[in-house]
Amino acid sequence: MRLHGYFRSSASFRVRIALNLKGIAFEQQTHHLRRGEQRAPAFLALNPQGFVPALEDGGAVLTQSLAIIEYLDETVPNPPLLPATPLARARVRALAQIVACDIHPIDNLRVLRYLRQPLGHDEATVQAWYNHWIAEGFTALETTLAASAETGRFCHGDTPGLADICLVPQVVNAANFKLDMAPYPTVQRIFTAAMALPAFARALPANQPDAE
Amino acid sequence: MRLHGYFRSSASFRVRIALNLKGIAFEQQTHHLRRGEQRAPAFLALNPQGFVPALEDGGAVLTQSLAIIEYLDETVPNPPLLPATPLARARVRALAQIVACDIHPIDNLRVLRYLRQPLGHDEATVQAWYNHWIAEGFTALETTLAASAETGRFCHGDTPGLADICLVPQVVNAANFKLDMAPYPTVQRIFTAAMALPAFARALPANQPDAE
Repeated sequence: MRLHGYFRSSASFRVRIALNLKGIAFEQQTHHLRRGEQRAPAFLALNPQGFVPALEDGGAVLTQSLAIIEYLDETVPNPPLLPATPLARARVRALAQIVACDIHPIDNLRVLRYLRQPLGHDEATVQAWYNHWIAEGFTALETTLAASAETGRFCHGDTPGLADICLVPQVVNAANFKLDMAPYPTVQRIFTAAMALPAFARALPANQPDAE
Repeated sequence: MRLHGYFRSSASFRVRIALNLKGIAFEQQTHHLRRGEQRAPAFLALNPQGFVPALEDGGAVLTQSLAIIEYLDETVPNPPLLPATPLARARVRALAQIVACDIHPIDNLRVLRYLRQPLGHDEATVQAWYNHWIAEGFTALETTLAASAETGRFCHGDTPGLADICLVPQVVNAANFKLDMAPYPTVQRIFTAAMALPAFARALPANQPDAE
């Protein structure tokens, strides 16, 4: 498989973790987002949205990190990234979507750029925006995780899965923007547990071939 | 089942369509988002994130529209909302996520509010923001749909599914903000086909008991 990604992209980071957890070998092709390489014609032919990640599997091209991860889970069932029962699966997907729908899109590079131009905001305002949406989402995540007996060493029980795959890159981003993690002890505890696993650590931005 | 929602919420709209397509009877409990009723303690006890939709099924409470719809698809398999093969499922999920991850969260009520206060933007700037992100997403959706032989009467083949469930409420929102749909003929065509089905039409905001 070939992963089109970028070391700093947290959606690419999610797919790297999933591939590592599944033990799937993959090569990486980087597209430098800050230089706009994801808008090159050759990549747009693969993914008209011009977003990373995109995963090539044989002749097929998959896009959108959550869709890619569900595909990997359906085609390489072990170890499973979702639990067995519909209700538990819904819980894990909902936790993942708190990050993937309610935090990450609002703090994405293209949105931060729009805040700078055309809206003309300074870096302090952009940083306040960034941390506001992470804090809102982490508060929801912390409350949900801390209140449930289904939370274990990881977001759901004692094995890592889709929710942890989304949580970890968002915590790394929060650290980059110096968010105070003290209000989110469960999120922080799960992050620490995940980072002890090679599948997560190897997927870190700093450990990618295109890291700067 | 009991759906906690709001007539104007497009994530609630998605779940209403899915319930209608599955033929599942449900009652609605409204939470007036503009009055902040989703922050009431009784609702926060159900869903700590304070978001609609939330679906009560027996003693269980499900949150996040995409997770709820996948749960409905797993527990009430007919008619299916996702195709049978992993690759086709990934395509439909990716189309759904263009709307649910890359358009809707950035144009959500709470984000528009933040643009007004504390950022101090006027309504023209808020409307430009809104339409900018819909236009970016619809361009991706249109290109992807128009380029693929798998697109049929609906986003994937000739029966409605998860991608159509996400597309329709976003087109209704675009119309509210007077977005020019001329650049998106395939999106518009699928919207028209869907609206001819009672399951979609009955789910329209204007047809809900809490519509104003």
